[in-house]
Amino acid sequence: MYKGTGASAGIGIGNAVIVEEKELVIKRETINDPDQEIQRFKGALEESMKQTEALAADLEKRVGEKEAEILKGHIMLLSDPMLVGEIQNNIQNEKVNAEFAIETVCTMYADMFASMGDELMQQRATDMRDIKTRMQKVLLGVESVDIASLPEGTVIVAKDLTPSMTAGINPANVSGIVTELGGRTSHSAILARALEIPAVVALSGILDNVSNGDALVLDGTEGTVLVNPEEPVLKEYQDKREAFLKEKKELEQYIGKPSVTKDGVKVEVVANIGKPEDVDKVLQYDGEGVGLFRTEFLFMDRDSMPTEEEQFEAYRKVAVAMDGKPVIIRTLDIGGDKEIPYMGLKKDENPFLGYRAVRFCLDRKDDVYRPQLRALLRASAYGNIKIMIPLVTCIEEYRQVKALVHEIMAELDKEGIAYNKNIDLGIMVETAAASLIADIFAKEVDFFSIGTNDLTQYTMSVDRGNDKVSYLYSTFNPAVLRSIKRIITCAREAGIMVGMCGEAASDPMMIPLLLAFGLNEFSMSPSAILRARKMITQYSTKELQEVADKAMSFATTAEVENYMREFISK
Amino acid sequence: MYKGTGASAGIGIGNAVIVEEKELVIKRETINDPDQEIQRFKGALEESMKQTEALAADLEKRVGEKEAEILKGHIMLLSDPMLVGEIQNNIQNEKVNAEFAIETVCTMYADMFASMGDELMQQRATDMRDIKTRMQKVLLGVESVDIASLPEGTVIVAKDLTPSMTAGINPANVSGIVTELGGRTSHSAILARALEIPAVVALSGILDNVSNGDALVLDGTEGTVLVNPEEPVLKEYQDKREAFLKEKKELEQYIGKPSVTKDGVKVEVVANIGKPEDVDKVLQYDGEGVGLFRTEFLFMDRDSMPTEEEQFEAYRKVAVAMDGKPVIIRTLDIGGDKEIPYMGLKKDENPFLGYRAVRFCLDRKDDVYRPQLRALLRASAYGNIKIMIPLVTCIEEYRQVKALVHEIMAELDKEGIAYNKNIDLGIMVETAAASLIADIFAKEVDFFSIGTNDLTQYTMSVDRGNDKVSYLYSTFNPAVLRSIKRIITCAREAGIMVGMCGEAASDPMMIPLLLAFGLNEFSMSPSAILRARKMITQYSTKELQEVADKAMSFATTAEVENYMREFISK
Repeated sequence: MYKGTGASAGIGIGNAVIVEEKELVIKRETINDPDQEIQRFKGALEESMKQTEALAADLEKRVGEKEAEILKGHIMLLSDPMLVGEIQNNIQNEKVNAEFAIETVCTMYADMFASMGDELMQQRATDMRDIKTRMQKVLLGVESVDIASLPEGTVIVAKDLTPSMTAGINPANVSGIVTELGGRTSHSAILARALEIPAVVALSGILDNVSNGDALVLDGTEGTVLVNPEEPVLKEYQDKREAFLKEKKELEQYIGKPSVTKDGVKVEVVANIGKPEDVDKVLQYDGEGVGLFRTEFLFMDRDSMPTEEEQFEAYRKVAVAMDGKPVIIRTLDIGGDKEIPYMGLKKDENPFLGYRAVRFCLDRKDDVYRPQLRALLRASAYGNIKIMIPLVTCIEEYRQVKALVHEIMAELDKEGIAYNKNIDLGIMVETAAASLIADIFAKEVDFFSIGTNDLTQYTMSVDRGNDKVSYLYSTFNPAVLRSIKRIITCAREAGIMVGMCGEAASDPMMIPLLLAFGLNEFSMSPSAILRARKMITQYSTKELQEVADKAMSFATTAEVENYMREFISK
Repeated sequence: MYKGTGASAGIGIGNAVIVEEKELVIKRETINDPDQEIQRFKGALEESMKQTEALAADLEKRVGEKEAEILKGHIMLLSDPMLVGEIQNNIQNEKVNAEFAIETVCTMYADMFASMGDELMQQRATDMRDIKTRMQKVLLGVESVDIASLPEGTVIVAKDLTPSMTAGINPANVSGIVTELGGRTSHSAILARALEIPAVVALSGILDNVSNGDALVLDGTEGTVLVNPEEPVLKEYQDKREAFLKEKKELEQYIGKPSVTKDGVKVEVVANIGKPEDVDKVLQYDGEGVGLFRTEFLFMDRDSMPTEEEQFEAYRKVAVAMDGKPVIIRTLDIGGDKEIPYMGLKKDENPFLGYRAVRFCLDRKDDVYRPQLRALLRASAYGNIKIMIPLVTCIEEYRQVKALVHEIMAELDKEGIAYNKNIDLGIMVETAAASLIADIFAKEVDFFSIGTNDLTQYTMSVDRGNDKVSYLYSTFNPAVLRSIKRIITCAREAGIMVGMCGEAASDPMMIPLLLAFGLNEFSMSPSAILRARKMITQYSTKELQEVADKAMSFATTAEVENYMREFISK
């Protein structure tokens, strides 16, 4: 049994498909029998031709003739006698392995093409590198997987899943996801929860122990993975799977019920969403609103800025679908961790401490922030939209955004365009600075939403995506807990709403503490809503005060976690 | 007048020498008269030969025949008729500029040599790239500067100075430093202060406005730079320069005086140092101890780990020189912002939130931390050494280091090696987490030293090295001030010593606040000690309470800074 981090609840049973995108490592090896190696190369060449032809045919059918052209160019190169001859010579004369000979010869050609400077030759260089990689993958047995068309009952096993890879996942076919990297808050994990696919992440070395086609069983709650289990074990997990699905069914009785504690404290359980379509799931699981609508999707995977109109449509759609329930929309939270050429965003040395979110937006008022805020204001005429500002560290930032909102309101008045004149403008509290002066903020802003993922990260000075230090990342760390408590207290004293939209809001061990601190709103993946509501109805906030006091008395994360684990298992 | 950030006080007057290390940008340009371009190329070729011959001769004289060999290889390549011929052909046939022709032909050769795989050919490839760059620099008029042998009265103008570049600076010849990048706490700035060279940094675009040989005047206190000023202005700055040096002289009367406020509160003004040799300056300026001895110098610019013995010698040297005065030595604070192959350190995605400092050391106890701690303990027999742990975020880290120290003490006991059994073990308080649980730490550790540079950075979620967001970096931010006050209060309540070794400790606007908060120890560049002592003796902590209360009542950095600026100018 392999133990990783449970990232998306449920039992997954199926057959492994290894999805690799990592760069190939080509080593030079000395070969005793070059003739045999040449045969190996010829086999790979043939297989590469076949694959490319199949891909080209499929692309031509699904997309169009023009798109298949590039692949036809590859076939032409693969049949070039000079290229094939030189690779064979290289194997023969240098006594090197086929992978290395391909590397040497194809790279030489690619560089030559590239150096010729004209556009057609640049394309030839790219083609040459593509066929090089394809042949090497065949030789090394690394399969290129089309994620969108995996067979039913697939368990994806990967180093990590990038956002672009995960885009194609079809939950009807994927029974589970297992990755070597990542944590509970990585892209893969968030996506798996959104799609309700059981997932285990941070399972270092699993790729060395799983082959394509292996029978896999994973427990996304416990974070365990079994490879080719014996029949009785498999049966056990099939039963577990059924029990899990049954409990899920039972939670449905909480649909339509209020989120209220035993002693009558009413809170809201709302949803985090990333795209307008996600509203379907919010309604399915009876979310009492949207606590966090990320707007990054509008800006990603494209070559130009989304227009105000496009944005307006997206925001309006969610506002209308939520039908008067609150929809908190976070303004653009982007920057520095990847290059986005059309936005002029460069990779920062320390992206999480860099030019991003509100810093970027305030620097780019005219082409970025103004259109977004205008779209948000216009959409506010169609539902209960609230605007939330990410990564705020000082009151000046809030005041600047507020002034900009008022400027745009005056414009809209002049143009006779409707909007909500009393729209709430709040902030994410997710930096140590914002927490330290939460009392100052609470006097001016309309609401808080605690972003525990970043708050924990910044408080602990830990990049949660960095495996070597992620052990320090825990919302149960006494420093983080103190910060959270302080933020909630400041908000409650000032009489403003305080929510939480980080991962911690749905954590069964955290919910009792948050209730005791006085949190008003819990925002989470739609699929977590009913379980959270069930938990909330089981507690009395008065009884929880004592639990919280005790939890806050510990000096270490482990003590807090152990205490809370024990408390909820009682 | 250009306005940047004053990084090292004083007036610098001299002639500009532009120091560029940036990569050359070679653009393809179409040439109308290839024959003329070939003449341009030939001129550059000749000049490159001359430069290389001069360098080779100098190197042979100063260092040795063997070291000059490489340059002789360059001369050989530069005289190769085939290479020269091909470049000429390329200019002629392609009608391209000489820079581009050199790029094309030399890169082709370099790649060819590199692909041949044997060691000699690898060296040829490197040589080819070197001569390529030299010729292109000549053509583009970019001078390669030997920093160590600049003429007297030089003002260095650069994009930024890397640590390796700054190593060669000779203060006798360099009257000033001006850089486009960096901030008050960048490498260049810290070095300039250490060498007492006036410096202005963060002067974006200055390279476009200064040419080699221009007369420059810079004011390292105000952060201003004048290019080719008129005679009366120059005179004014010469007077200013004299006044500055005069005041510096006057400060010398504070040598030997205690650092005590008007109402008799005794504090310590101590020094930050980076190398054992820096102790000379500490003694010159009458530092009452060393508040921060960085140990990174022992690990940088080398290919293997320093031995315990090497480390012991360095620590002992400082302890002995300081003759019983406290010497706080910080354990290795390294990682993630640069690759250090011999340590297995890779570049992190977010280095400041990554695998570094105590995290790295505790993960590498056997080969890194144990030898350092053993060297420190052994050296503690020779003076008043205290050990300080950087980047602590949780009490478990402190407990682990303490346990390791006790383990090593038992070893030393067994081996009969002397050490200070009561050695103090303290922490840098420089993360939001440590500040939030400073009360918990204060019960267990022997002392605090507040690292304001990192504390500000982490509190504000700002990489101070990132120009686009450094405007958010200020120790006068209300959140940062609250954090500092809290740390000092927790230490004083627990009865442990609390110092500060970040830049803020020597800031005239910050010193009154720190005195009011109750800071015990101010650690700074040796050259700042006497001025700080003078300031301290001018205040009464009782009177300062009111000032501090007022300063803490503001909501914005600007208000705090304005108030303190006004207060100290009274």
